[in-house]
Amino acid sequence: MENKVTLEMIRDARKALSGVAEVTPIVTSTRLGKNLYIKSENLQKTGSFKIRGAYNKIRMLSPEEASHGVIACSAGNHAQGVALSATRLGIHSVICMPEGAPILKVEATRGYGAEVVLVPGIYDDAAREAQRLAKEEGYTFAHPFNDPYVIAGQGTIGLEILEQVPEVEQIIVPIGGGGLASGVAVAVKSMRPNVKVIGVQASTVPSMFVSIRSGEITTVKDGATIADGIHVLTPGDLTFKLIQENLDDIVTVSEDEIAAAIVALLEGPKTVAEGAGATSVAAYLFGKVDTSLKTVALVSGGNVDITTLSRIITKGLQKTGRMVNLTTKLTDKAGNLAALLTCVAETGANVLNIEHEREDAKTEVNSCVVTMTLETRDEAHVLDIRKALLAKGYHLFD
Amino acid sequence: MENKVTLEMIRDARKALSGVAEVTPIVTSTRLGKNLYIKSENLQKTGSFKIRGAYNKIRMLSPEEASHGVIACSAGNHAQGVALSATRLGIHSVICMPEGAPILKVEATRGYGAEVVLVPGIYDDAAREAQRLAKEEGYTFAHPFNDPYVIAGQGTIGLEILEQVPEVEQIIVPIGGGGLASGVAVAVKSMRPNVKVIGVQASTVPSMFVSIRSGEITTVKDGATIADGIHVLTPGDLTFKLIQENLDDIVTVSEDEIAAAIVALLEGPKTVAEGAGATSVAAYLFGKVDTSLKTVALVSGGNVDITTLSRIITKGLQKTGRMVNLTTKLTDKAGNLAALLTCVAETGANVLNIEHEREDAKTEVNSCVVTMTLETRDEAHVLDIRKALLAKGYHLFD
Repeated sequence: MENKVTLEMIRDARKALSGVAEVTPIVTSTRLGKNLYIKSENLQKTGSFKIRGAYNKIRMLSPEEASHGVIACSAGNHAQGVALSATRLGIHSVICMPEGAPILKVEATRGYGAEVVLVPGIYDDAAREAQRLAKEEGYTFAHPFNDPYVIAGQGTIGLEILEQVPEVEQIIVPIGGGGLASGVAVAVKSMRPNVKVIGVQASTVPSMFVSIRSGEITTVKDGATIADGIHVLTPGDLTFKLIQENLDDIVTVSEDEIAAAIVALLEGPKTVAEGAGATSVAAYLFGKVDTSLKTVALVSGGNVDITTLSRIITKGLQKTGRMVNLTTKLTDKAGNLAALLTCVAETGANVLNIEHEREDAKTEVNSCVVTMTLETRDEAHVLDIRKALLAKGYHLFD
Repeated sequence: MENKVTLEMIRDARKALSGVAEVTPIVTSTRLGKNLYIKSENLQKTGSFKIRGAYNKIRMLSPEEASHGVIACSAGNHAQGVALSATRLGIHSVICMPEGAPILKVEATRGYGAEVVLVPGIYDDAAREAQRLAKEEGYTFAHPFNDPYVIAGQGTIGLEILEQVPEVEQIIVPIGGGGLASGVAVAVKSMRPNVKVIGVQASTVPSMFVSIRSGEITTVKDGATIADGIHVLTPGDLTFKLIQENLDDIVTVSEDEIAAAIVALLEGPKTVAEGAGATSVAAYLFGKVDTSLKTVALVSGGNVDITTLSRIITKGLQKTGRMVNLTTKLTDKAGNLAALLTCVAETGANVLNIEHEREDAKTEVNSCVVTMTLETRDEAHVLDIRKALLAKGYHLFD
């Protein structure tokens, strides 16, 4: 196997992907600012860019390899990318997933034609089982990122961006294992070396960020992130090398910033991004990059678990001062709640929810705790409300 | 003022709108079925189709009228459409809104250049104030739907659909006051009379549905709907006549169906629709129309209040059996909760949330009430879980 990725390989991948993957649209929104362009891989088939690399890998199998089928381990976008690609090429695919994988991901992967093997335990157990089955049954293992053909497939996005936004000066790309960023960077730097390529990671799982800063492949300790698509603890050696050579910088974004970017994408371009996909937009909106440059933020996927989207929305609104929870204490007397709400109304905030509780460790016998969820304009507005309440003698709990 | 709408007026509007309104994309998704095409007016400037009619109306003002400015009453999409249109044409605009209007709608309307007048009271008070100001200050009143130029502007969407989906056999259009449906129907029936045009209303506010069925303009009693964009109690006389002459049928959808359609649009094409916008997709997904026809569902807007989107998601998931709340009673003894959860786990459902409460009117002294929120596959899965719990002797509360 070659361990380099060239512009020719990427161009070749692009030809192969014609009619298989979509040329996803570039979207803008006045609410996101005039310098920001969104490359919408959340609108790609299977809901993420992964089909590009997976298809480009699987199409290169020899007839002998193809006859044995492919195997992958993933509870996410890679699973669906491999499943649909293999099905399109008439090849059997097996996807190992940890037993607790969301029902819908399992169903979607089966829907694309794969055999799903649910493995007891966590992701690592599923990965071991996939390796074992590959050896035992002769399946080709489809790596999610550390593979030159996978990287070349993802790189096709770089070619599309240069054509769709010729005035581009900067491209922001989410990094998990680094396959997407490697491919895009090779494509872009080969054609237009002056265009900056910036990677972005979740600050809670900054494996490539730390590896590049320290100059060697580093495994970071596990952290929680809503960007599950880039939750990778150890970079690949090939992707590490390509990113070291081709990226201008890597930045990190916090969980709150990712949530706020998801909300901004819902409200501005009315588009659904998953956590990993929104990191690029978060990096721009929270000034982690030079925002004076014409910037394309690559939104890598949109497969966010819909049952958690509402929690993310709440987080995102709070981060930008659009919603706030305030807790105070009232003497349990007629008219006191009305007086509190009048004070709030005078600040122009809308009450979204109110909880009024008598029994609480914080309260004395004849008082009660009131928690208000307020719709607010911005952080300055939240500060005004706090000041107004304090001025009227209300105590605010943290 | 003319009181007819012709194909020529719509073609003329289209020329005028070039460079002002977007030609919004047609979107498909395997999850929504192969016969369904989405016309994405939620991706239109200002987040809804309203700019088309508003701009077409305002551009027709005489220089004398234009010098006095325009006024409208709206807390929603019409406000933003009028504001941006007037600003583009260099005309002053005033928007009356009821005082309780969401902060963000007020800010957005101001952002598009309008003067916003917040009127104490409800919508009707704001409407009266707008009429009063129009007379007193000489503003031209921009009606949201019952105006031939407004209707002609909305009709441009019909021309676009026929070009973008030449194989179309049926078009579903949300109806509030009826301006959008009138315009689209005149355009489509003038060009391709065999293409069916079906209107859709919320079943809780079925003003045009009832009016057409009874043969006369009827005011319905007020009802609650998440489709605030089509919350209109009395059709216009012009729109009533045009719909009577040009629509093939009107159907209605329930609140749950609308919520489920919003979820389907988030998950499938990853796009954000407001309640009114999603009614067309709801009509298709819940079989209110002939689903064997190549169908374009017009998603009229995407300005859903983000703080309520999470509540809609929950409603939509419950409607389609993807989430269920089950409440049962346990004797308050070590191991009983574990046994219950084991029974649930065996059915393959994921527990999203669990509430375990001791003090409750329903419970005896030594028992507690457990409410579980479960992630499920579909309605059949919910039924299986209920059966499994009943078989183990658990009582399920409604």
